[in-house]
Amino acid sequence: MSNSTLLTTIYKKLEEIDHLQGVMTLLGWDQSTMMPAAAAAGRAQQRALMASLLHTRRSDPALLDAVDTLAARSSELDLDDRIVVRELKRDCDRARKLPSEHVAERARTAAESYTAWKSARPRDDFASVQPFLESLLALNRREAELIGYQTEPYDALLDAFEPEAKIAEVGPLLLRLGEKLSKLIPQIQQRQADFRPLSPFELTIDTQMELCRLVCERIGFSFDSGRLDATTHPFAASPGPGDFRITTRFRPADPLSSLYSTLHEAGHAFYERGLPASHRSSPLGQSVSLGIHESQSLLWEDVIGRSEAFLEFLQPLLAAVSAGSFSPDPRALWERVNVVQPSLIRVDADEVTYSLHIVIRMELELALLNDELSVKELPSAWDDRYRHYLGVTAPSVKDGVLQDVHWFSGAVGYFPTYSLGKLHAAMFYEQMQQELPTLDDCIRSGNFTPLHQWLTDNVHQHGRRYSSTELVRRCCNSEPNEDALIRYVQQKFGLD
Amino acid sequence: MSNSTLLTTIYKKLEEIDHLQGVMTLLGWDQSTMMPAAAAAGRAQQRALMASLLHTRRSDPALLDAVDTLAARSSELDLDDRIVVRELKRDCDRARKLPSEHVAERARTAAESYTAWKSARPRDDFASVQPFLESLLALNRREAELIGYQTEPYDALLDAFEPEAKIAEVGPLLLRLGEKLSKLIPQIQQRQADFRPLSPFELTIDTQMELCRLVCERIGFSFDSGRLDATTHPFAASPGPGDFRITTRFRPADPLSSLYSTLHEAGHAFYERGLPASHRSSPLGQSVSLGIHESQSLLWEDVIGRSEAFLEFLQPLLAAVSAGSFSPDPRALWERVNVVQPSLIRVDADEVTYSLHIVIRMELELALLNDELSVKELPSAWDDRYRHYLGVTAPSVKDGVLQDVHWFSGAVGYFPTYSLGKLHAAMFYEQMQQELPTLDDCIRSGNFTPLHQWLTDNVHQHGRRYSSTELVRRCCNSEPNEDALIRYVQQKFGLD
Repeated sequence: MSNSTLLTTIYKKLEEIDHLQGVMTLLGWDQSTMMPAAAAAGRAQQRALMASLLHTRRSDPALLDAVDTLAARSSELDLDDRIVVRELKRDCDRARKLPSEHVAERARTAAESYTAWKSARPRDDFASVQPFLESLLALNRREAELIGYQTEPYDALLDAFEPEAKIAEVGPLLLRLGEKLSKLIPQIQQRQADFRPLSPFELTIDTQMELCRLVCERIGFSFDSGRLDATTHPFAASPGPGDFRITTRFRPADPLSSLYSTLHEAGHAFYERGLPASHRSSPLGQSVSLGIHESQSLLWEDVIGRSEAFLEFLQPLLAAVSAGSFSPDPRALWERVNVVQPSLIRVDADEVTYSLHIVIRMELELALLNDELSVKELPSAWDDRYRHYLGVTAPSVKDGVLQDVHWFSGAVGYFPTYSLGKLHAAMFYEQMQQELPTLDDCIRSGNFTPLHQWLTDNVHQHGRRYSSTELVRRCCNSEPNEDALIRYVQQKFGLD
Repeated sequence: MSNSTLLTTIYKKLEEIDHLQGVMTLLGWDQSTMMPAAAAAGRAQQRALMASLLHTRRSDPALLDAVDTLAARSSELDLDDRIVVRELKRDCDRARKLPSEHVAERARTAAESYTAWKSARPRDDFASVQPFLESLLALNRREAELIGYQTEPYDALLDAFEPEAKIAEVGPLLLRLGEKLSKLIPQIQQRQADFRPLSPFELTIDTQMELCRLVCERIGFSFDSGRLDATTHPFAASPGPGDFRITTRFRPADPLSSLYSTLHEAGHAFYERGLPASHRSSPLGQSVSLGIHESQSLLWEDVIGRSEAFLEFLQPLLAAVSAGSFSPDPRALWERVNVVQPSLIRVDADEVTYSLHIVIRMELELALLNDELSVKELPSAWDDRYRHYLGVTAPSVKDGVLQDVHWFSGAVGYFPTYSLGKLHAAMFYEQMQQELPTLDDCIRSGNFTPLHQWLTDNVHQHGRRYSSTELVRRCCNSEPNEDALIRYVQQKFGLD
């Protein structure tokens, strides 16, 4: 068959897969936001059916054969088609290495483990989930063998989330970052001793939601192509072209956490929206990695959202939603949303100590995977690492090793992408500031257009054209490294 | 193959069809309630794909063959299986008579006609939609020939909405109803001259929504298995088991219209919820006809919702949502929500004059289908019938022949089901009152359990076990007729 026939086959099948994927996304979004409780069992059956329809199409021999054939004729293709075929070949090869029995066993074990974790966590009961974690680790080790690797089994797992990344580079990078941040923390806290942050305050849920919507509109999240709703766990989802939905949650003790959660998810949505719509169903229209995705959410949540310029922009909006009754001094507000304080819970951590939580998890999962640490020893190793990096100890496993769902649902190699996102966000921002010298003024005045333009041109529009490392290199003329993030922290807190 | 093997095949395939149908319903619900505007084009593609997946399964030769084989061995089957096979055979035979080219042409023409109607209506421009209506009529005539009929082509169309119904019975029935109602209207209006209905009042949209929710809860619409949202056109939809969603709309001039719209859709949802869940995917778990469906919505909206007992029940709820500031006298409220006044627009008509709008449409579509009336003559025939039955004349076609979408999207034979619903609602209510002598007291005190129980036992739980006529006969020991409705109106307005 001719190249053009094969390409037509591929693009047609990708389009159908994209439609089904959109439907799947809607089923999940609705379940988290709108669905009444009694519908859960029926929804699970609908999702299972749709997943099997998707799987059938993704493993359609006509698609796989076309990809294999064209991959072998790669040099004959146009550049864009060549990239599409390269990425599809990558996906197909990975999928083909995993027998369906393994995939099914992993899914089943993960589901059982998740259920066990849900019930064990409130009971502070590590022993009851230990066997599940052991099974999931064994399955991850088997998966690494099936996928193959050069020297580190971990690479085979990391690759699922951060394609092309190698722990030989990511590991030392994050360890250096951890060390440098650890040294900065006491200096920051010393600096903070002189701060006079805004006193605790209250905003009703309605006011918080109004603020979130207003900020969304002002920063360019259009409600003509998006939604903002409330859920227990915030997320961003795109159930189809022109449809970018985000959610947030409310915490009584912290009335701005809903706003920062909104900014985080808006960052993810901006990335999805910025991907080339005409390539939506092909790798050219898809996000390149979790690390880059997270760079976009953290850029908006932390780097922009906690900047002095943004808080000046925010002040009149706070005044507007509170009918003038709440109009805090931007500097006092800045000091409030930038408190750095080592703590126990990753998801509540400030932007400086956050990466230390990640380094701890990366060290531990590497040790577990390489059999240098047993699951039984994990809780005490956890406490040891928390003492070392953060100087805190969880009173019980609930807020210690059981705090995150990731391992207990089988995800090993995922955590590093959070810190890679943070590194990349700092690198992108530093570069952006060089190229857009008036960026802070723009933010202060609520003009986010140059920022969106820069992100679209430099990051979003490329889809999976370049690997994440290559993308960073092209944007920032530098290999991914921790320096920009360290400079960002130093500058922010006025350290030497 | 053995009967049990064939039955297993059938039930398995029906289950998959049900899951896909649920997904389709969710795509539509989301589109009407939640979806951002820019997502429309993508959603259309997703729906088209899902429709084609559904069509493939519904016309799966393995399913059709199993149905045909078992239909021929019907006497060997258990009663329930026999009914399932009988109804599936009915559906399959109808579907097989329509070549896919015809179905596609009809769908295409209907879509074009709908678009033309949308733009023609505000412009009062009948001429521009005339050719579309002519094409759709020709397609309906062709469809009647393809389906087949004994004496009346109309029967082949009516049967799609009200299985087994014949215009030779429905026609005279609705004409008698029209004549009798026409005679009652002057008497009612004379009676109303002495009424002192509640003066116009206002309720904010938020208060209206709160009232709707409160009433829903009190009448047994559980939000654990349902939702209430706002849309331009209200509807009820069940996107899966345990999931019954309704919508309402708000009209500034009539602050209770949102409540009556909610009651209407809740009636539909109660029917869906009352169908046997264990048979959800088979005809035994599906509604029997549009007429019976409408009987349930009209029972709640009009027969119950506009009764003195219900308005007494409503008074404290109105007081509650208005923080005590609005607590109208129930009789004055009754007089307000029961004004009978011939008018131009079907969907705004009161419950007495409503059926006259239907009779007009039935007469006209019969004449059109049988070539006794040309489409060109339709506007003047419309005006003539409105003068005859209602004594009103539309100032322009916008509020005349162009007011309803039905014909312009190809639906001929649909309108009678609205009045059949009304007849059935009155018959069911009369029977219910005989069997439940304290029914009014129950409604007054907010105890809707006996009512739900009666409806479930007598109507809902049977699914498609009986035809609508047979169902009415079993419930009410009588053929469907207009007498109960006439008695209901006479009693309500204290006529002789």
